[in-house]
Amino acid sequence: MSQIADIPELVAAAAAGERRALARVLSLVESGGTGAAEVQRALRNAPADGYVIGVTGAPGAGKSTLVGALLRELRLLGDRLRMSGGRRDDGVFIRSMASRGQQGGLAAATQAASLALQCCGWPWVLIETVGVGQVEVDIAAMADSTVLVLNPGWGDAVQANKAGLMEIGDIFVINKADRPGCADTRKDLLSLLAQREGESPPVLETVATEGRGIPALAEAIAARHEKLAASGGLEVRQAGRIARMVRLGMRAEVERRLQTICDSTSFEDEVARVAAGQSAVPDAVERLLSAMDTERHG
Amino acid sequence: MSQIADIPELVAAAAAGERRALARVLSLVESGGTGAAEVQRALRNAPADGYVIGVTGAPGAGKSTLVGALLRELRLLGDRLRMSGGRRDDGVFIRSMASRGQQGGLAAATQAASLALQCCGWPWVLIETVGVGQVEVDIAAMADSTVLVLNPGWGDAVQANKAGLMEIGDIFVINKADRPGCADTRKDLLSLLAQREGESPPVLETVATEGRGIPALAEAIAARHEKLAASGGLEVRQAGRIARMVRLGMRAEVERRLQTICDSTSFEDEVARVAAGQSAVPDAVERLLSAMDTERHG
Repeated sequence: MSQIADIPELVAAAAAGERRALARVLSLVESGGTGAAEVQRALRNAPADGYVIGVTGAPGAGKSTLVGALLRELRLLGDRLRMSGGRRDDGVFIRSMASRGQQGGLAAATQAASLALQCCGWPWVLIETVGVGQVEVDIAAMADSTVLVLNPGWGDAVQANKAGLMEIGDIFVINKADRPGCADTRKDLLSLLAQREGESPPVLETVATEGRGIPALAEAIAARHEKLAASGGLEVRQAGRIARMVRLGMRAEVERRLQTICDSTSFEDEVARVAAGQSAVPDAVERLLSAMDTERHG
Repeated sequence: MSQIADIPELVAAAAAGERRALARVLSLVESGGTGAAEVQRALRNAPADGYVIGVTGAPGAGKSTLVGALLRELRLLGDRLRMSGGRRDDGVFIRSMASRGQQGGLAAATQAASLALQCCGWPWVLIETVGVGQVEVDIAAMADSTVLVLNPGWGDAVQANKAGLMEIGDIFVINKADRPGCADTRKDLLSLLAQREGESPPVLETVATEGRGIPALAEAIAARHEKLAASGGLEVRQAGRIARMVRLGMRAEVERRLQTICDSTSFEDEVARVAAGQSAVPDAVERLLSAMDTERHG
């Protein structure tokens, strides 16, 4: 592929602020193929020291509106959010990842894109996600600060608590706070959060459509950044993310190897032998895996 | 472990109908360890030719009551269900698998237990499961016939359709059919099923608490068995299950190897090198995996 040869050049252009080059760099890292590895190698000397903010919550909670309002506010706080790194201040780059394959693939692609953006000098990366369960856990693993967006009358706070969502939020926002039931939701939330260990996270109220509460939210996000930067928490989180990427990378490669075995005639033969009572499942597993190992060292 | 030495004896006792031996055999195969492999080897010459019936549906659909009524009815049809194999007719053996670990683990444990029961001569195995999504897909992969249990006013048939549940059912049951809305549910169901390729599956109505409709359900299950037996479909499905077990077995072993790497100091070192900008993620992945391969062949 011609773009593979140009990768160092492409990466340099992306790091210098060229948006089309950046888009191509992101497409390459998201694809997870050879091009991704080349990009990651070309970027390895650039520090990935941005601040990653995750925004998550149930569908309809008003996350997109909140994120839109937050983007304007965060840019006003540019210097505070650029404390630890990030050389760029030329606006906002928006990337939709919605169509990047399945859950596991999406998490790996998002993680790789986030890291590449930081290496290209973007001082902060905001990841907005919608979903339940695994997706929120993924975003929490990727972000330095996870903002969990709820609504008044969201009611089943207990249910969300069971789903582990109370554990992953670093900052809680009750959006659409002008609706009835806001005080009750705050009460429920505070009593659930009281069960968490350590310091209580902030619980804020916003009306994103009117910009209400957004400055306080941006302030909470910046304050947490300063705290993490001062305590060394950013480096710890960054190391955790790299560890996770290495694990995901190993798993992807191993899955690829397994798929190759499962598509082979040896696999069919082994299954037929078990079905005929000439072999047992664990023996088939052992033989197929050791054939895979031998092939790689033959 | 002393029981490992006794495994051929234990397996022989289980195959001869001793229930306590069978319970121990099942505990061993479910555990997935060395004992499981020994049991599977000892059983390999016994044909796994039972008929596997899966019963699934939303919580509260009345599956347990239905299964209870069905067990009595199916025993009356003993000869027809024993057509292709199964040497045992001494009642019902019930095993709760609810506490067998996580989803992936539970599926593998259930599959292994089902196969062991068949090898021990049980002519049919009925797997009842509750849950949404993956669990139903798992049961459909394990069963020769999957019975999907719905209720009147179950309403969001469209939702279930989106979840892929319409695809996995071989026989559809509207239980609690004496409740209002049964005709509407049947109508919804038939129009959704009309979109499936091939022959339309039976849609039956039952009131399990009163035994209503149970003989017709047992008849549908037996009729499908005869059809599968005549067409060679049972063998095809059995081979599919073995293939799945081999895949699950390989994945479990590979996960174990990956875990060993992730717990090693080499892993920490590689992560630290990436964090320091001295290496890139794909290089760390490559080095760790090839160290794993070398260790196995060193």
